Amino acid sequence: MSISARNVFKGKVTELKEGPINAEVEITTSGGDKIVAMLTEGSVKSLGLGMGADAIAVVKTPWVTLLAGTPQYRFSARNMLHGTVSSFVKGAVNCQVNIMLPGGSPISAMVTNAAVADMNLTEGTPVVALFKASHVLVGVPV
Amino acid sequence: MSISARNVFKGKVTELKEGPINAEVEITTSGGDKIVAMLTEGSVKSLGLGMGADAIAVVKTPWVTLLAGTPQYRFSARNMLHGTVSSFVKGAVNCQVNIMLPGGSPISAMVTNAAVADMNLTEGTPVVALFKASHVLVGVPV
Amino acid sequence: MSISARNVFKGKVTELKEGPINAEVEITTSGGDKIVAMLTEGSVKSLGLGMGADAIAVVKTPWVTLLAGTPQYRFSARNMLHGTVSSFVKGAVNCQVNIMLPGGSPISAMVTNAAVADMNLTEGTPVVALFKASHVLVGVPV
Repeated sequence: MSISARNVFKGKVTELKEGPINAEVEITTSGGDKIVAMLTEGSVKSLGLGMGADAIAVVKTPWVTLLAGTPQYRFSARNMLHGTVSSFVKGAVNCQVNIMLPGGSPISAMVTNAAVADMNLTEGTPVVALFKASHVLVGVPV
Repeated sequence: MSISARNVFKGKVTELKEGPINAEVEITTSGGDKIVAMLTEGSVKSLGLGMGADAIAVVKTPWVTLLAGTPQYRFSARNMLHGTVSSFVKGAVNCQVNIMLPGGSPISAMVTNAAVADMNLTEGTPVVALFKASHVLVGVPV
Repeated sequence: MSISARNVFKGKVTELKEGPINAEVEITTSGGDKIVAMLTEGSVKSLGLGMGADAIAVVKTPWVTLLAGTPQYRFSARNMLHGTVSSFVKGAVNCQVNIMLPGGSPISAMVTNAAVADMNLTEGTPVVALFKASHVLVGVPV
């Protein structure tokens, strides 16, 4: 199977908070990077998700917002992954920014070229990759 | 009226599961393609959605993830539309992949060029277009 | 701090509807532009959001859908901002459309070049920028 999303985090379910309607699922990679996903309780049941289960978290690049510099705001997003810019793929309008997380997982964000310029991003810049738990897709092995 | 989103599915409400807070709405096109949207119960009321009502489901291309090959994972997304790649619009970083669904509805996904290469996508490749019900906008005729 | 998202609305919380699970937060800029965000009730508490609090609403350009012409549909999205196209940044596939809102806030949408052509968008075209409350990130000053 191949998947178009550039960010696929393979790991295990390390936390599962179930509510009447929604559930929050934390998936931790073997390197220790952590992704939180928000699913319906129905999906938790139909996927058979439980603590320790193998799972993947999928995040498309256009859903990832980058922060750099001294934090001036706290955000509502459940996922705030600290990493370092490793490379760029530049287009006419958009730029794919590749980031390395401390646990060894890469994550990419699609941002505008203007954002890269404004943020003064270069290889090695420390950044935070921000995305909502409700934007994460979860998969379990067939 | 014109709309920037490339994926507009015109159909009728064929299923409506209402909860205290959210509701799941299935819209089926005349050709039989089905889209599931998650709305707040407030939106269901204010739009006057009911079984058989005319409605459109709107999905922007960056919200669509593509899968190809033998399924290795089951996903939390409510929309998994099986179709065939019909054409591409390639840029420097991103590529718009156009897909034809069995019911005759086209659907497009914005993915990276790297994804197209990794997935070995060509015209005629069978793919699955994946997106969350919570990413779908619903409209009803004025 | 710098942020990659092109749409950052700085304002104050002017409405707060809390439910058992989710909350709807309206942020109004000094110029009077209004953005509605959907957060978990947990986020409202952890951010300490209350009426009159300083906050920012963050919306990435791929989340914004544009409408033009005579309205033919009513939509489920809580945010429908009426504005005027001010400029474009065109790529091979995608185009960043910059829009000015009446309160003086700019908002940008990433749409396909095909959409710009189909919609006949030019500088000065009146448009509606549409996005779901659940796609908005909220930040509060540290």
